[in-house]
Amino acid sequence: MTDTTPAPCAPEDVRRVACIGAGVIGGGWVAHFLARGYDVTAWDPAPDAEDKLRRLVAAAWPALEQLGLAEGASQDRLTVTATLAEAVADAQFVQESAPEKLELKRSLLAELDAATPPGVVIASSTSGYPMTDMQPQHGDGADPGRLVVGHPFNPPYLIPLVEVVGGESTAADAVAWSSRFYDVAGKSVITMDRELPGFIANRLQEALWREALHMVANGEATVKDIDDSITEGPGLRWAFMGPCLTFALAGGEGGMGHMLDHFGPSLKSPWTRLEAPELDRELRDAMVDGCEEAAGERTYADLVAERDQGVIDVLRATGRLGGTAR
Amino acid sequence: MTDTTPAPCAPEDVRRVACIGAGVIGGGWVAHFLARGYDVTAWDPAPDAEDKLRRLVAAAWPALEQLGLAEGASQDRLTVTATLAEAVADAQFVQESAPEKLELKRSLLAELDAATPPGVVIASSTSGYPMTDMQPQHGDGADPGRLVVGHPFNPPYLIPLVEVVGGESTAADAVAWSSRFYDVAGKSVITMDRELPGFIANRLQEALWREALHMVANGEATVKDIDDSITEGPGLRWAFMGPCLTFALAGGEGGMGHMLDHFGPSLKSPWTRLEAPELDRELRDAMVDGCEEAAGERTYADLVAERDQGVIDVLRATGRLGGTAR
Repeated sequence: MTDTTPAPCAPEDVRRVACIGAGVIGGGWVAHFLARGYDVTAWDPAPDAEDKLRRLVAAAWPALEQLGLAEGASQDRLTVTATLAEAVADAQFVQESAPEKLELKRSLLAELDAATPPGVVIASSTSGYPMTDMQPQHGDGADPGRLVVGHPFNPPYLIPLVEVVGGESTAADAVAWSSRFYDVAGKSVITMDRELPGFIANRLQEALWREALHMVANGEATVKDIDDSITEGPGLRWAFMGPCLTFALAGGEGGMGHMLDHFGPSLKSPWTRLEAPELDRELRDAMVDGCEEAAGERTYADLVAERDQGVIDVLRATGRLGGTAR
Repeated sequence: MTDTTPAPCAPEDVRRVACIGAGVIGGGWVAHFLARGYDVTAWDPAPDAEDKLRRLVAAAWPALEQLGLAEGASQDRLTVTATLAEAVADAQFVQESAPEKLELKRSLLAELDAATPPGVVIASSTSGYPMTDMQPQHGDGADPGRLVVGHPFNPPYLIPLVEVVGGESTAADAVAWSSRFYDVAGKSVITMDRELPGFIANRLQEALWREALHMVANGEATVKDIDDSITEGPGLRWAFMGPCLTFALAGGEGGMGHMLDHFGPSLKSPWTRLEAPELDRELRDAMVDGCEEAAGERTYADLVAERDQGVIDVLRATGRLGGTAR
């Protein structure tokens, strides 16, 4: 990555966002940015794109009202343009959400780079391709330094997570600018320092998902067993406490260190079809340090109380306490 | 498994439960059964067991009040006995939660079988051993047919899931009786038809967990990245919609069939360190049928609306909507 500074305005000063591609993901982005009070221009080559997009935004709006609209937020601040060039002409940030086809993404991003005002960051929603494979080459007026990946989760107007990462030619400043912008725009950002197929959350999801497929294939569990085992078990905690801290809590006062020192060897047992990593000192310490950092000032008792209250709140919220059925 | 009927009373008629072992898991069971209105007798060989147990129950009680106590539920209905024999003498169900040591479990379960009234079901909380390896042999008055595994999640008074499975000598009726009893007692039950190391939920957790360890070991993600990627992303949905149905929803109207037919091949990509199963016709159909069964009468639009409302409810419940910070 290079280090040129591309941004024409501070992330806090962005007022107008362009969304290119208005399907489920692109339309979800439009709804999100509108709800956060931005002016949004959108473009999609499909002939009925505007109708579909406005219906998607209208359908999402009651949910967005529940989440809390920013001051001045309105569906009326959406402009659907006839051309890509019009959509990005005055944009201070561009979010591309075209179908996952490599050649399409490459030519579209080159076209966007040519049409978008100098220095404005262009982010791709891709879940499948590293930016290195999609961004234009230097030269011929191209500015690959401002292209980043901003990978959302469906629907982008509800699930906070965005994974941000640059390609080989991306400027470090463009990554930092994007992360800050998404943060200001109400997303939860993970900034990655390298391109990694599947990013982080999808790799974790996929590991669980593959094990589920093995179990169904072997007749060991049904689809219902698998879904119930998560929603009635660990899924209740994962809504607010991640797998690392949850595992650490199971170690009582001894935390992650106790768990790894005592149960580490059993990770090598052939329970799952996933190859176990070497649990050396370095990995052990990285896990322990990470959990201690995550706990911060909170004691074990604090964390247990937080977990218990969280589970109760989630059970109540999802209608699983007596008398509160949804 | 054999088919003799062991139960001396119907699951609905149980009034008195014995809990053997009163540590974190056993004590959690005591709290749960008390909150559901049962008389509970408990025994633990540790000299300070009664004090610790009563403190654990008292600490859990405010949470249990929030969850909703059964009529007549009271901490006063706990009796801590001096001997194992006294604890089980009048019990209509026995839950064993001793430390995870195979020899200890074997001798304890044999002792329980000898002391417990004929036909009363004895369940083990074990997470580590198949019942086949722990239950006594037939003969000498032993009744291995009434021994089952009832594997809870921590803490048992909050997390609904219990995985029920018998060993080779367990009577099919004892498994059915236990599943019904746990259901009556307010748990969410998965009844397994075979012994499987790690049961179901722990296998899925472990697959995700191992991938997380790989990522930390390779410097690809920090502990915080991993935890955030779940709590800000898929974890929000998994609190109320399992991984299979979530994945099916991502396929739009086409559901699981669309996802497997179009993205199946990419499951073989080397994203995770988990070996992918062969996605043959049989597995494909099992997944599709399972998801259709799970959806039941609900349309795609119904499911999307349910997911959206669920995410909003969970975000609100965990203090992540504006102005509702915990």
